[in-house]
Amino acid sequence: MSKVAEFNALNDEKPREECGVFGIYRNDDDIDAVVEVCSGLYSLQHRGQLSAGICVNDNGNFKCLKNSGVISEAFRSNALEELPNGKIAVGHVKHSVRKFEETELISGQPLLMRYKYGSLAIAHNGDITNKAKLYEKLKESGSIFQSNSNAELISYIIAGERIEADTIEEAVLRTMDKLEGAYSMVIVSPSKLIAVRDPHGFRPLCLGKMKNSYMVSSESCAFDSLGAEFVRDIKPGEVLVIDESGVHSYTEHCGGKTSMCIFEHIYVARPDSVLDNQSVHMFRMNVGKVLAEKYPVEADIVCGIPDSGVSCAIGYAAASGIPYGIAIIKNKYLGRTLSMDSDSLRKRTLEIKINVLKPTVCGKRVVIIDDSIVRGGTMAHIVELLKKAGAKEVHVRVASPPFKNSCYYGTSLPESEKLVANRMTTDELRQKIGADSLEYISVEDLLGCADSSDVNFCCACFSGDYPIGKPEEFFDKYSTKIKG
Amino acid sequence: MSKVAEFNALNDEKPREECGVFGIYRNDDDIDAVVEVCSGLYSLQHRGQLSAGICVNDNGNFKCLKNSGVISEAFRSNALEELPNGKIAVGHVKHSVRKFEETELISGQPLLMRYKYGSLAIAHNGDITNKAKLYEKLKESGSIFQSNSNAELISYIIAGERIEADTIEEAVLRTMDKLEGAYSMVIVSPSKLIAVRDPHGFRPLCLGKMKNSYMVSSESCAFDSLGAEFVRDIKPGEVLVIDESGVHSYTEHCGGKTSMCIFEHIYVARPDSVLDNQSVHMFRMNVGKVLAEKYPVEADIVCGIPDSGVSCAIGYAAASGIPYGIAIIKNKYLGRTLSMDSDSLRKRTLEIKINVLKPTVCGKRVVIIDDSIVRGGTMAHIVELLKKAGAKEVHVRVASPPFKNSCYYGTSLPESEKLVANRMTTDELRQKIGADSLEYISVEDLLGCADSSDVNFCCACFSGDYPIGKPEEFFDKYSTKIKG
Amino acid sequence: MSKVAEFNALNDEKPREECGVFGIYRNDDDIDAVVEVCSGLYSLQHRGQLSAGICVNDNGNFKCLKNSGVISEAFRSNALEELPNGKIAVGHVKHSVRKFEETELISGQPLLMRYKYGSLAIAHNGDITNKAKLYEKLKESGSIFQSNSNAELISYIIAGERIEADTIEEAVLRTMDKLEGAYSMVIVSPSKLIAVRDPHGFRPLCLGKMKNSYMVSSESCAFDSLGAEFVRDIKPGEVLVIDESGVHSYTEHCGGKTSMCIFEHIYVARPDSVLDNQSVHMFRMNVGKVLAEKYPVEADIVCGIPDSGVSCAIGYAAASGIPYGIAIIKNKYLGRTLSMDSDSLRKRTLEIKINVLKPTVCGKRVVIIDDSIVRGGTMAHIVELLKKAGAKEVHVRVASPPFKNSCYYGTSLPESEKLVANRMTTDELRQKIGADSLEYISVEDLLGCADSSDVNFCCACFSGDYPIGKPEEFFDKYSTKIKG
Amino acid sequence: MSKVAEFNALNDEKPREECGVFGIYRNDDDIDAVVEVCSGLYSLQHRGQLSAGICVNDNGNFKCLKNSGVISEAFRSNALEELPNGKIAVGHVKHSVRKFEETELISGQPLLMRYKYGSLAIAHNGDITNKAKLYEKLKESGSIFQSNSNAELISYIIAGERIEADTIEEAVLRTMDKLEGAYSMVIVSPSKLIAVRDPHGFRPLCLGKMKNSYMVSSESCAFDSLGAEFVRDIKPGEVLVIDESGVHSYTEHCGGKTSMCIFEHIYVARPDSVLDNQSVHMFRMNVGKVLAEKYPVEADIVCGIPDSGVSCAIGYAAASGIPYGIAIIKNKYLGRTLSMDSDSLRKRTLEIKINVLKPTVCGKRVVIIDDSIVRGGTMAHIVELLKKAGAKEVHVRVASPPFKNSCYYGTSLPESEKLVANRMTTDELRQKIGADSLEYISVEDLLGCADSSDVNFCCACFSGDYPIGKPEEFFDKYSTKIKG
Repeated sequence: MSKVAEFNALNDEKPREECGVFGIYRNDDDIDAVVEVCSGLYSLQHRGQLSAGICVNDNGNFKCLKNSGVISEAFRSNALEELPNGKIAVGHVKHSVRKFEETELISGQPLLMRYKYGSLAIAHNGDITNKAKLYEKLKESGSIFQSNSNAELISYIIAGERIEADTIEEAVLRTMDKLEGAYSMVIVSPSKLIAVRDPHGFRPLCLGKMKNSYMVSSESCAFDSLGAEFVRDIKPGEVLVIDESGVHSYTEHCGGKTSMCIFEHIYVARPDSVLDNQSVHMFRMNVGKVLAEKYPVEADIVCGIPDSGVSCAIGYAAASGIPYGIAIIKNKYLGRTLSMDSDSLRKRTLEIKINVLKPTVCGKRVVIIDDSIVRGGTMAHIVELLKKAGAKEVHVRVASPPFKNSCYYGTSLPESEKLVANRMTTDELRQKIGADSLEYISVEDLLGCADSSDVNFCCACFSGDYPIGKPEEFFDKYSTKIKG
Repeated sequence: MSKVAEFNALNDEKPREECGVFGIYRNDDDIDAVVEVCSGLYSLQHRGQLSAGICVNDNGNFKCLKNSGVISEAFRSNALEELPNGKIAVGHVKHSVRKFEETELISGQPLLMRYKYGSLAIAHNGDITNKAKLYEKLKESGSIFQSNSNAELISYIIAGERIEADTIEEAVLRTMDKLEGAYSMVIVSPSKLIAVRDPHGFRPLCLGKMKNSYMVSSESCAFDSLGAEFVRDIKPGEVLVIDESGVHSYTEHCGGKTSMCIFEHIYVARPDSVLDNQSVHMFRMNVGKVLAEKYPVEADIVCGIPDSGVSCAIGYAAASGIPYGIAIIKNKYLGRTLSMDSDSLRKRTLEIKINVLKPTVCGKRVVIIDDSIVRGGTMAHIVELLKKAGAKEVHVRVASPPFKNSCYYGTSLPESEKLVANRMTTDELRQKIGADSLEYISVEDLLGCADSSDVNFCCACFSGDYPIGKPEEFFDKYSTKIKG
Repeated sequence: MSKVAEFNALNDEKPREECGVFGIYRNDDDIDAVVEVCSGLYSLQHRGQLSAGICVNDNGNFKCLKNSGVISEAFRSNALEELPNGKIAVGHVKHSVRKFEETELISGQPLLMRYKYGSLAIAHNGDITNKAKLYEKLKESGSIFQSNSNAELISYIIAGERIEADTIEEAVLRTMDKLEGAYSMVIVSPSKLIAVRDPHGFRPLCLGKMKNSYMVSSESCAFDSLGAEFVRDIKPGEVLVIDESGVHSYTEHCGGKTSMCIFEHIYVARPDSVLDNQSVHMFRMNVGKVLAEKYPVEADIVCGIPDSGVSCAIGYAAASGIPYGIAIIKNKYLGRTLSMDSDSLRKRTLEIKINVLKPTVCGKRVVIIDDSIVRGGTMAHIVELLKKAGAKEVHVRVASPPFKNSCYYGTSLPESEKLVANRMTTDELRQKIGADSLEYISVEDLLGCADSSDVNFCCACFSGDYPIGKPEEFFDKYSTKIKG
Repeated sequence: MSKVAEFNALNDEKPREECGVFGIYRNDDDIDAVVEVCSGLYSLQHRGQLSAGICVNDNGNFKCLKNSGVISEAFRSNALEELPNGKIAVGHVKHSVRKFEETELISGQPLLMRYKYGSLAIAHNGDITNKAKLYEKLKESGSIFQSNSNAELISYIIAGERIEADTIEEAVLRTMDKLEGAYSMVIVSPSKLIAVRDPHGFRPLCLGKMKNSYMVSSESCAFDSLGAEFVRDIKPGEVLVIDESGVHSYTEHCGGKTSMCIFEHIYVARPDSVLDNQSVHMFRMNVGKVLAEKYPVEADIVCGIPDSGVSCAIGYAAASGIPYGIAIIKNKYLGRTLSMDSDSLRKRTLEIKINVLKPTVCGKRVVIIDDSIVRGGTMAHIVELLKKAGAKEVHVRVASPPFKNSCYYGTSLPESEKLVANRMTTDELRQKIGADSLEYISVEDLLGCADSSDVNFCCACFSGDYPIGKPEEFFDKYSTKIKG
């Protein structure tokens, strides 16, 4: 256990600032908007488990239900029945590690607000990088903020632009001139459903269809789950407006160089999603193949750490000819906000969470693949368990390059001082965790894992190459507090 | 039961838009700010049972806890322990009949917000009459609203004024230039506790002291309960600022004609409170005396309907020489939001709520006193019960004049069409409810019941004489939706 | 505050082991059994606030819902809708001070069990005095106990007797041969509603009727609340069986000397109840009159401590000619299990709970009447408050004799060492609490307060004269643990 | 969707009557018994998600906490802190499909009871087959039952036997003479922890050690998770008593022919458990190998349905040389009691639960492996999804023989009429679900999949060969009601 402690393992949670958004514009009488949005959110639950919310526009009458916890906790018993089957609806699941926010400034989404032109609901995924400047300007003119959420900030800007603009879509387009950073969002106006993706396309967003009704989702897997049809990705920079007259696309902000977050493919997204024409599962398979080619090793078995390491391991096995096996069992009942309330229990979380399948590894040379290493504690614990289970050798392969830099576009990595790759060399880390070898995929190789060449990726957390720079100095200081 | 139905008795809830506010500026180490605010709220719980909240400023770090329900529900188990023992804190209890708000636009208080000069928490009691105009103006400049609460509206105006003003107190004073209507409020800034009462003093607010710490409360009864000392009422129009250097009073807005809501004395406030130097209990005793003098009757027993009719009945008994007795028992376990969730149970609420003490009334001529009659259903039910219990005669005396007009200053009366006094004459009503006589105190006599002549009262709901007029046309239309 | 501490005031809760039972045998289609039982329980809520439960027999299919807390907490949201509108139903509210039981051995009622002849539900009020012997015997034959409740013990005996008996009523009658102590209970068998009252009639129980349906209740006030008709008291020793063929009375155990708990009239019951032909309110009025006659004093005002002291005070005022007034305001939002969860808050409970109406007492000679004094802390606090509020003299009159002995028949008094009357003389106590005079009614006078001479009372807690003796030695030791 | 409906897919839940038990006898000061039991239960949560409970014996003082829901719901906030760190503790997780039990007769475990020799807590896994006879006999002698649980029944018998026996272990051994059926259980007496496994060893149970403290668990995976050492399986028929003097084994009931439930290996147990020296994962791997050998097919990819089909698929892939792949993604947030409370949502459960990874199967010939087919609906849905995703061929292989008979030893299968294998031939089913081939492993081959020959299996649900017969006629009729 001491080794674990050294790495401060307990806090070695994967970065998960991601959120999920899902919207519907209902044109069919036999579809229940609330049921579809709630079902869609279930398929996006992996993107956020801190709070869940649904907002329905029923003939201009907006009703919103949001609460902390996973969906099944947030919408207890018949809470959903209080929501009408409106024509337009949007839902949101949110993740955040910062518990204090709950009591400080509420920031569950969708954010519902009234402004000059009626009501507006916004569900957002991403992070705005020039928010310090935007906050400053808005505060200068007397604005007040009741939460730390980007959604509230964006709402303000839209409301301000709408005064000058002729339509809500024009206001949204003008808002995009002012926003820098990552934003995939769904907006419900009194008569429209609007889907917006930032020009870099940092976060995914796509369009689906069920009968004659339209749906918008963070990931395509939600459409599959509902039996809806995937239509296409929302383009980076695109504003898609769905109203009584159909679907309208505004592409003024399209065409620049894009930079989809590569960590979506590595870790965040569900493997059955296709983001910008790239299957997440195939991407991970390819990563496994590349790792096998670049960092081969004599071994008896290849195993992945669930959930995101598994696809890579299958790819590694296929490319290397070493059999694929299951070595790690993850307790699926633990990933929950409410669990582990007792202090003494919380200390045991990591131990309870992970177990090793002895028959798979005993006496074997094991290749173990994880999606990434943040602080190092989880991997140290796993290598220790594998050795204890009798593994003769443990070769660690990592499906991403070393984390060297923090993220300002929606993935909350710890400050760079806490990233283990900034604190020791790869070989020092290998020794520390007791692995027989340890190899990361390189940034270059990682980029080559996309099947299509359509997509450009943001790899700033690995390369330090920030496509739109870092936020201003002032803001950096407060970033842990005011992001979200 | 049919009689009850005629009057739509089930909805004959007394008007209760009132809220309660309680603040502390802590100068003693051995006082726990959160415990004192929570205890203070318990003493103000009668002013609002829909939601409760506390906001603490701990060295500029604001934390807020608020939830629906009475205090014991809102702050379950050890929720309060999450709040630090800060230097400044404010609490709020809220009442409202409009359940839908909960899912639509959240409006629990204190409202906590960040603006140009840091954080600010506001707890408000009252209602702003020019809010339509204020909303319009703010929306014109791009403001967004996340609730229907007056507190949010006022926050915006303070934030706007603060830009131009040198200090928060100057901003508050400037805000008062813009606000019309009723507002007693407590504001917590990064370093100050500010108590504000509108120039008419519609709602009460007073200052207390415990050791070296200062407290502000809607009613003085809270100070007694805590063992704190009552210092004085906040003057109508006064802004009281408490900070490290002591207590500072700003009286720029003082001196005009005041108009304290007389219904506070009749019904809203606790009898052990003293509002603007007037004991609530003594006021009610006096009302009873006047009723006895003006509307005497040969009777065997005088009884009050709890809780607010009891003081009047004692006064009536003392003045008339007719013995005082207890005729009505009220089930104290029913006045709760969560109870009666089953539809069929809800229909029985009125029956379960009230019972008659037969031995008191059987064979007797009974004078029964209630604080007011709104729709008439409750009184009809009570007269019926009294007769059934054997009362030979039932003489109804009402501690307020007939309700003829709605209120725009913080007490939510039904629209005037639903007020029984607008639908039938006093004698028609008497016949309908089966009373042998029915008399209301007159507005003039009511005004004479105050012991001191310091106070001017607003009696608009009885007289139609609105001290600051009614809100504009536009707003009236939406009043049921946007007030609160 | 120091004075309060001396008396250990915080624990000076009134004894409240009492429970309430309510049953229905439904012969009308348009009556909802669950709604009536729940409404009946609301009227009996003062008898127990720790847990509530309802059990319905729907054609032999028994369903039971029980939970901790007051009714509105125990039957949240639409929980009641899960219960069918059966023909027979029984409900129970329970009080107990011993929180630990909740986690140790569950003992909410009604107790529902299956035995040789189907299902049986029992709701019980009282305490069995020979339970040590009964437990021993049952255990000897291999019985197991899942709670500490008398209901479980009685169920066992009924089940055992039923083996030999021809009918359930015969089994109940045989069970009564074995039981010693206090028991008023309602039993639901597959086809019958059975009401049982012990031969001494320690606890009340009465029969009511609504249309063609029969009801049984601990107190008559519940019938009034429901608009049902009070038929008669169940006689001490009577077994009343209601089934398809009507109401049948078995009086084998009737006729002995009865001993109704006099504390029911002093404190436990609602004033609007009539127990064994004695109005509770009139009893209390009479106590007040006797106190006035026996312990007169020159004074300006007579006040009662709510709720049970008020009737006495009115009686005292009427007899003495001293005006009645309201001096004590009780915070009605505090008497709740869930409130005060924070330790520091709990310490303030007594302070928050009680406030003095200064204008009533300032400069006055005050007579203050409470129903009883247990440990002395509450009265010490009140006298202190009255003096602080300016009372010139405070004369305490107590509506019961000094508590000298514990109770074994259903009222849980503290062990006798903790009763203040055993620790100091009346004059010592008077000095300690700072009263100008202190007088208790005598046992003899108290007995004279009943209007009718039909009833014999148990006054053992005052006189030590136990009508059926104390429980055996062995059991005494465990009494704090195994009673309930 | 129509195909799904035909098979009544929504109710096609896998049989899950299983429970999990975990006990500790603590000999180390630095171990927290409650934390270890709770952690152990987390590792057994897959065996039951309906309720969870822990009972602690702290110097003979038993405290029990149990509630409905998964562990994180049942032990909310700091509920666990109310339990002392006793010397002996036992926990239980329970599964059941029958929701009505909750309101009818409570049957959460551990069952805590008092009897002649003090307190006893029992946590049980299995089902008693002669309970009709046992109930009858006990009822004949006046016993009462407050639940339907086997634990209560067994408690009675132990209590009865204990009267005659000299020790609790003797009583347990005598009880085993009377019990027929499946029972793995943990008993806590005032001074002992007792683990009991029925002579056939239907359900698993094993012994572990952490430092000097002993643990008992349904499955070995719990020891791994806690970092405890697996000592050995409790033998079929063995009674293991742990007390101050150490571990004592009673083997009077050992030595007969055993019959471990083979469905534990196929579906119930976690793959990282080792039951009776047989690794669950290796068993499943072997099943996969046999399926590959016996039912080969030309295909491009082999996939398993998570969670239990995955190990088989890996085995099939290894044996056949066809690559292993991931085709099915299961939504892990859905397997919860509280979710899906809205009716309309519930209808979508199956759809949301399962998604197909298109890139894995598109244009491919797919072998898909599930652990079993009960009603057929789930498999029909999956084949449909695979075809829709572009699979050229779908070959279904099932890791168990066709279900033909119900289970009376602890696994609640639907009545045999509802089992699809009794309603159509394999080829009819193949056609119906649209598979290109469909093959089950045979009973004989399945038995050959165990690595060791130590274990005998019960395969009655497949073969109809019940090792201890079916329960008596009478009981069968009530089985849906009285089992559990």
